Amino acid sequence: MNPITHQLERILENSSAEDLEILNDYLKNFEKKQQGEFATYLSASLDMTRITDDQASMVSIPNTPHIHNNVGIPHGGILAVLLDTAMGTLANSKCDPGFAAVTTTLTINYLTVADEKKISAQARVIRSGRHTMVLEGNIFQEDGKHIATATGSFFIIPKKEKPAIASQQ
Amino acid sequence: MNPITHQLERILENSSAEDLEILNDYLKNFEKKQQGEFATYLSASLDMTRITDDQASMVSIPNTPHIHNNVGIPHGGILAVLLDTAMGTLANSKCDPGFAAVTTTLTINYLTVADEKKISAQARVIRSGRHTMVLEGNIFQEDGKHIATATGSFFIIPKKEKPAIASQQ
Amino acid sequence: MNPITHQLERILENSSAEDLEILNDYLKNFEKKQQGEFATYLSASLDMTRITDDQASMVSIPNTPHIHNNVGIPHGGILAVLLDTAMGTLANSKCDPGFAAVTTTLTINYLTVADEKKISAQARVIRSGRHTMVLEGNIFQEDGKHIATATGSFFIIPKKEKPAIASQQ
Amino acid sequence: MNPITHQLERILENSSAEDLEILNDYLKNFEKKQQGEFATYLSASLDMTRITDDQASMVSIPNTPHIHNNVGIPHGGILAVLLDTAMGTLANSKCDPGFAAVTTTLTINYLTVADEKKISAQARVIRSGRHTMVLEGNIFQEDGKHIATATGSFFIIPKKEKPAIASQQ
Repeated sequence: MNPITHQLERILENSSAEDLEILNDYLKNFEKKQQGEFATYLSASLDMTRITDDQASMVSIPNTPHIHNNVGIPHGGILAVLLDTAMGTLANSKCDPGFAAVTTTLTINYLTVADEKKISAQARVIRSGRHTMVLEGNIFQEDGKHIATATGSFFIIPKKEKPAIASQQ
Repeated sequence: MNPITHQLERILENSSAEDLEILNDYLKNFEKKQQGEFATYLSASLDMTRITDDQASMVSIPNTPHIHNNVGIPHGGILAVLLDTAMGTLANSKCDPGFAAVTTTLTINYLTVADEKKISAQARVIRSGRHTMVLEGNIFQEDGKHIATATGSFFIIPKKEKPAIASQQ
Repeated sequence: MNPITHQLERILENSSAEDLEILNDYLKNFEKKQQGEFATYLSASLDMTRITDDQASMVSIPNTPHIHNNVGIPHGGILAVLLDTAMGTLANSKCDPGFAAVTTTLTINYLTVADEKKISAQARVIRSGRHTMVLEGNIFQEDGKHIATATGSFFIIPKKEKPAIASQQ
Repeated sequence: MNPITHQLERILENSSAEDLEILNDYLKNFEKKQQGEFATYLSASLDMTRITDDQASMVSIPNTPHIHNNVGIPHGGILAVLLDTAMGTLANSKCDPGFAAVTTTLTINYLTVADEKKISAQARVIRSGRHTMVLEGNIFQEDGKHIATATGSFFIIPKKEKPAIASQQ
């Protein structure tokens, strides 16, 4: 048996119900990444879903102990991941071919604690210039609670040349 | 065999070298959390180490594909996790017993791409009042490159009453 | 003749048409302040008008060379005066009697140059808590151009005791 | 007698000692602007002095009722004028000939009330790139009190073509 499988068996023996759920989610989404359903390890690990249209983008993750801080609520930095991803995805969707938008400044106001099962950040463009973009991001709950509001500045750069023989992505 | 072990075996069959490394790190740190070396699933998943003294706190994570965005560089939101954790850890260490510091505003300026094997955020207190604190956070590389600078505002709140029979933490 | 009047006469002799207009505005608004039309020297000097209702507040100033920087456009700091005043006025109007709201964090994204004759900032409340408030401020032109967007965090403090024999204000 | 002089005489008749001081300062600095000692009406009206060297820039104004808000302390927006001017002056001094730096994002944390006779903001460069710069600004008092801390992002743009026959500046 593979040593990594041994390790998992050891972990399983010592797992609480919560541990099992976290592990299960992680492996399920890791396999989905192998199958191409997630673009990055990070989005798989957070079980992140994205919807982008012409006007807005929305990024959602489940609110589980996997993203909680040591007082049992969603880590402010993970909300930053959500807000930055929502704004960055929309900003990039607006760039001309060959260009990408990178975050230069991100400001987040944390308003109250997210306590629903899903956390969703929505982004919209405030200003789109030739060299810079400014976007707004918000996390609202379904019960109407406003969890966080953010603004992001993005700088538009030419994408780097692809190497002659690029690995497939 | 446990269905979760079956799933792991399936994943291992389809794993690239990178996949294996990511999985290995995840399970190794998950086990360490079970053994009490990490306080949260999140800090385990990021392999986060913290050092806090009276003047400053430093939080570090390895720079691996686990935290990369879809252009292969550390996700700006993960740098936010680092900066917020460094500032929040220091802010909380300064609170009187029975009080905690929660982030109200976080502003990050992203300066350049982190390209060393370890990413470390350091925090220091700018102002410490009775109700609010302001901290500064920075990510510097060992080669001297300044990756990001941040300021965080924290609001000091009384910790919630512990339940009569609290689970041990 | 008063030496200050002598000084004015000297200034008038050397005045361009622009100088005259600036001086004229200044003295006109200074006199209005004496008559109680402005609460502060600053609001008189900027010819600031405010409208506040239950939902929003709006603060306007004329766009004249008095507020321009050395490249002939409105100084970013003066836009900050406008945005902070709009947000602060609304925040204070929401405070219980005996309490005041003071700005703790102000973030402004400058989007494009204000080029109309009047500059107006509008504020609305994003979140109103017992100890803190978060507001949004925006400067829009009548032609629809979005000049600046801002968020402000406010901390709510008890107003200082009035002295036993207060000077009339 | 010039109607503007008449107006001044009327104002003087109704002036408090404070009014007189404010008026006196304003006219004195207005005259200095006519003599070329100030570059703008705004810097004259605030009696602003600037020192810039290779590493830092410092901008100072007197703390008088001219800049106070309606609770008698320096208006947060005026501190923004100081911080933005200090950072912008330094940023522009670093630009190649033909280029200028404009503020894109300004974040200010207000720490405590300025209560000395002079208010000084100092700036230093955090990162200087080809297209963007990030600076830090701080207001410290001589007694050591930290009044405000700020970060500013600047975008570097080509200066506009000068008109064929430019008026002298």
